[in-house]
Amino acid sequence: MMLTLPDVQYDLRPGIIEFRAGHPDLALLPAAGFLQATQVILEREASRALSYGAEQGPGCLINQLCAWLGRMQGETPPATEQVLISGGASQALDMLCMLLTEPGDMALVQSPTYHLALRVMRDHRLELVSVPSDDEGLNVDALEETLTSLQRRGRPPRLLYLVPTFNNPSGITLTLERRRALAELAQQFKLIVVEDDVYYQLWYDRPPPPSIYSLAPSGSIIRLGSFSKILAPGLRLGWMLASPEIVRRCVKSGVLDSGGGLNHFTAHVAAAFIELGLLDQQIYTLRNAYRERRDVLVNALEEHLPQDCRWVTPQGGFFVWLRLPAQIDSASFLPAAEAAGVSYIPGTLFFANGGGERYCRVNFTMFSRDELEEGARRLGNVLHHR
Amino acid sequence: MMLTLPDVQYDLRPGIIEFRAGHPDLALLPAAGFLQATQVILEREASRALSYGAEQGPGCLINQLCAWLGRMQGETPPATEQVLISGGASQALDMLCMLLTEPGDMALVQSPTYHLALRVMRDHRLELVSVPSDDEGLNVDALEETLTSLQRRGRPPRLLYLVPTFNNPSGITLTLERRRALAELAQQFKLIVVEDDVYYQLWYDRPPPPSIYSLAPSGSIIRLGSFSKILAPGLRLGWMLASPEIVRRCVKSGVLDSGGGLNHFTAHVAAAFIELGLLDQQIYTLRNAYRERRDVLVNALEEHLPQDCRWVTPQGGFFVWLRLPAQIDSASFLPAAEAAGVSYIPGTLFFANGGGERYCRVNFTMFSRDELEEGARRLGNVLHHR
Repeated sequence: MMLTLPDVQYDLRPGIIEFRAGHPDLALLPAAGFLQATQVILEREASRALSYGAEQGPGCLINQLCAWLGRMQGETPPATEQVLISGGASQALDMLCMLLTEPGDMALVQSPTYHLALRVMRDHRLELVSVPSDDEGLNVDALEETLTSLQRRGRPPRLLYLVPTFNNPSGITLTLERRRALAELAQQFKLIVVEDDVYYQLWYDRPPPPSIYSLAPSGSIIRLGSFSKILAPGLRLGWMLASPEIVRRCVKSGVLDSGGGLNHFTAHVAAAFIELGLLDQQIYTLRNAYRERRDVLVNALEEHLPQDCRWVTPQGGFFVWLRLPAQIDSASFLPAAEAAGVSYIPGTLFFANGGGERYCRVNFTMFSRDELEEGARRLGNVLHHR
Repeated sequence: MMLTLPDVQYDLRPGIIEFRAGHPDLALLPAAGFLQATQVILEREASRALSYGAEQGPGCLINQLCAWLGRMQGETPPATEQVLISGGASQALDMLCMLLTEPGDMALVQSPTYHLALRVMRDHRLELVSVPSDDEGLNVDALEETLTSLQRRGRPPRLLYLVPTFNNPSGITLTLERRRALAELAQQFKLIVVEDDVYYQLWYDRPPPPSIYSLAPSGSIIRLGSFSKILAPGLRLGWMLASPEIVRRCVKSGVLDSGGGLNHFTAHVAAAFIELGLLDQQIYTLRNAYRERRDVLVNALEEHLPQDCRWVTPQGGFFVWLRLPAQIDSASFLPAAEAAGVSYIPGTLFFANGGGERYCRVNFTMFSRDELEEGARRLGNVLHHR
């Protein structure tokens, strides 16, 4: 029997509007610009781009990235020694766990937070402890209590992982005041904070507050960025901003010394893509497209869902975090929703230590206006007729 | 002060013939064919190649790779469920250490063996124990003694790492008889064997014996391959052949679930490169070029080096493993060699538990005929006049 192997990650089931997805819209990927950037690289510097790369990442991308980050965020660009080019945010998190933690170490994680980051940390046998969040993002008072209590018990956590901007799954952004408080706590407790900020550039209403990384006086914040949401996930390319000490620790790892810099060829293509001015343009395209989709989905939810559903309109990112009526467990309800032709990810997956039973993560970036409206209608129908 | 960041890994010092290198010749990289393969992908299937990839690797590359491995090696092609597309052999080893070992576990390593693989394993806090090798490769009797002794002490090793074919650094190839014996020992002791086989296709005289993986009745051999030596290291692309169970364990890891398949875009380009028939052609080009360089170097060493130096002419791969005259420690001697304009890597780096003091790893793939001859002449001079 000949099995057909898939090329891509998601299996989209026919007849189901797969709100469970978390991918960019493939139709918006800048294939023509990407081909142009690739041609520039292969005609101008093929042998450099195809050889073993500098461990930190190629200088051409680091320089372009620093200037671009300064320009996009209106901040002082990071110094080049604070940058490591990564194989995407998940690879960076995996490498940080390998270099900075031991199995059995305790790690704090925002709840809710990106479920697959929890999986990466569990693969490194970290013991995960939830810190709750609310409509202003991570609850910093609860964090301080947890840190104090763990310190008293002689088990200080090794790190804190959070998605502070347009959180996956909740869409919530940590307020400026809390960012400042978190930066101070990190210094006070010598806590490594991993700020997973892959949605930062995808704001739809107004720019988010400055990154925790940029507010921190100490060197213990590590900020992860990615080209997956703003350019193309298949590149497996991202970056880490961290203290020169942590960057050096990564650069000196066996895996980078052996293989050279991560994804050296695609790093060159990304550098050319920025150099050609295509990245800014692509981000404007994505903001406009995704803003409209967010609005379509939120309006359709308003129209079709029962009164006792709740959500906060996300100001950026990929997701609406939907709370179902009381007594509905989103995991148990999923088969009924899928039978009605709409899916989502049940909220419990995003909690390390329980919680989120009434919630659903709903994606809006992958769908047309019609699909978003029809998906909301189907979900409303099945909720009304339960 | 503006620092210039490097794009590529090696700093080649002017005036020194850098025999310490271990890279392919950049001038032989198939830039034109690579551009052709990239255009095919971006014109035919850009959105698939740029999206999140299937965790195992894209089906298009897995299918091409299996057929190619069968064709190149005259073996039955591996079944597709035995393949994982990796981010290169170092990334694969890193992932195996993460998933299959715990800090403090014991790992056996061939001595001498690839020094940076030792670094990857040490980053995972494995305790490394050397198993010696001779002119027929890993000493399988010594391996059996070590396994028996460790088993008796209740500390069975978690895995064995070796480079059996055109070993880095020694150039030696494990004989067929010993491959069979090793496959049996692996089964008997339930030992995971990581067969790092990145030079297998680069033979210059006759094909090497079948891989240990293909000889093993059990599922405990993991064979690592790479596009770094035969196509381009900047792609960060390779493959792992293993039991379906181990492939599944990798596919189910958080980092692959989160980021999708490793280096999905460059995997598509490699698939097109094979599809266009360019990989076979590139390997023939490399074999011819590197065979000639090996011959030039070996003849020049014969001509210029003192009588009491020793080496075995490598039948493939990248290196000559040179033993210096008695009483010369290659590490202490290196400054004199570099002052005379030639470098190498001292042998001790390739031994996990000491040894190799008289040896030097000398690369021949990166250099022209003139450089190889001049490098050998310089080394001979400085050895004669010590």
